[in-house]
Amino acid sequence: MAGHSFDQAVALQPLRDGVWQGQTHPAYSGMVGPFGGITAAQALQAVMLHPQRLGEPVSLTVNFCAAVADGAFEVHARAARTNRSTQHWVIEVQQQGQAVMTATAVTALPRETWGVDEEPMPDCPGPEDCAPPAALPPLPFAKAYEFRPVASLWPEAWDGSGDSSLTQTWVRDQPARPWDFVSLACVADVFFPRVFIRRATYVPVGTVSMTVYFHAGAEQLTRTDDAFLLGQARAQTFRNGFFDQTSQLWDTHGTLLVTTHQIVYYKQ
Amino acid sequence: MAGHSFDQAVALQPLRDGVWQGQTHPAYSGMVGPFGGITAAQALQAVMLHPQRLGEPVSLTVNFCAAVADGAFEVHARAARTNRSTQHWVIEVQQQGQAVMTATAVTALPRETWGVDEEPMPDCPGPEDCAPPAALPPLPFAKAYEFRPVASLWPEAWDGSGDSSLTQTWVRDQPARPWDFVSLACVADVFFPRVFIRRATYVPVGTVSMTVYFHAGAEQLTRTDDAFLLGQARAQTFRNGFFDQTSQLWDTHGTLLVTTHQIVYYKQ
Repeated sequence: MAGHSFDQAVALQPLRDGVWQGQTHPAYSGMVGPFGGITAAQALQAVMLHPQRLGEPVSLTVNFCAAVADGAFEVHARAARTNRSTQHWVIEVQQQGQAVMTATAVTALPRETWGVDEEPMPDCPGPEDCAPPAALPPLPFAKAYEFRPVASLWPEAWDGSGDSSLTQTWVRDQPARPWDFVSLACVADVFFPRVFIRRATYVPVGTVSMTVYFHAGAEQLTRTDDAFLLGQARAQTFRNGFFDQTSQLWDTHGTLLVTTHQIVYYKQ
Repeated sequence: MAGHSFDQAVALQPLRDGVWQGQTHPAYSGMVGPFGGITAAQALQAVMLHPQRLGEPVSLTVNFCAAVADGAFEVHARAARTNRSTQHWVIEVQQQGQAVMTATAVTALPRETWGVDEEPMPDCPGPEDCAPPAALPPLPFAKAYEFRPVASLWPEAWDGSGDSSLTQTWVRDQPARPWDFVSLACVADVFFPRVFIRRATYVPVGTVSMTVYFHAGAEQLTRTDDAFLLGQARAQTFRNGFFDQTSQLWDTHGTLLVTTHQIVYYKQ
């Protein structure tokens, strides 16, 4: 199969109105089944391919209902409401007729308005001044990204020593690939579980729900091209078996392209 | 009609399996149609009433598809996937057979685990040391809450002078009412639009999508009772007609009960 492995992974074949078939891709394997980000990207891809789509993605929420098995899946996407400038999508990823992901998305016609970035890009060295990671998790999808960590991408010692869940890292597709909405949805999930960073202790985890807000339009993404993005992630709280993660992705010029949040199941 | 106006507003009558009817409530009117928080609460209420519900809410995402008209609405709630300890819900609020809100939620059986709050409650005076607001928006639902602002609840002068979107305020139902999941979903939307705070300028706005993560279990909420919560809200970016809002709600002891995010349409 030719082309970038990301393009292979998000290729969907139309089955009937609003229903596509996809295949899991070995380059995006995760801990149990595929990396969650790629399933989110595949869900959004059905919206991008839908002939009734109005405008560009503004928000996406995906709920991970069950482990995705390697092999074929269906994506069902339906425009629940179409307004003059916004559109509301309901999406389901299914295997064997069972939901493995539920999702909603909003698309909107692009507009120009007053604007300002209030959350500044952290002051940190550029990607060319950051070394590749000393350690990476033994997961195939980790090799689908090129990382230039600034702070705490992955614990170097699993000695229970952490006191902060903050990660800062430059990241892009490997090999480099121009960013688009679908690859932003995928990279939004690229940060390793906050509980590992905070505790330097391994516990079973799984993302339950992720929301992605797209602050970049297609024009902005054309300017960003395939450059590194600075990703930052941290948890606000860990309690009763769930922690949150709040994250941002900036381009090298300090423009905030994506804000994203997730809630993650953990044991112990 | 007897009882607290919030209980009246979230009262739903069963129509058939998975479908309830509700009525908009004048105490929760907003700018155009009802306050978004009350519609979110009504959507979650259908899950809370569903005979197949497993456990307590962990996350809720609501998408505001269209202005809700005053009067009757239907809530459709369906368990898309039920696992051993988690359950995934797909919800739609309809008027005249058309979606006015799409939503998803995750519920889970309560568990006790290791935990820590990483985002500290801001250092600020207690509710008893904060004066009622000097100004409030002329919206009926603003009177459904008792506010004790710490910082920038609502612009005192509309002179285009703002330079930060940060709000910090103590808040509870008015009259006071013990907190539950449904009233937390509602109060998650209580912060006035960030663009007003940042710019001290009025522009048309409307929330497009909101996600609520519940970090408090039912036991914790019993301890919180009807006390003030400290709410904090700020935007990370305003661009191309949409801004985000990232918010937290703590109890008076500094326990982080809710983290919540939204993306909001604005003009100009």
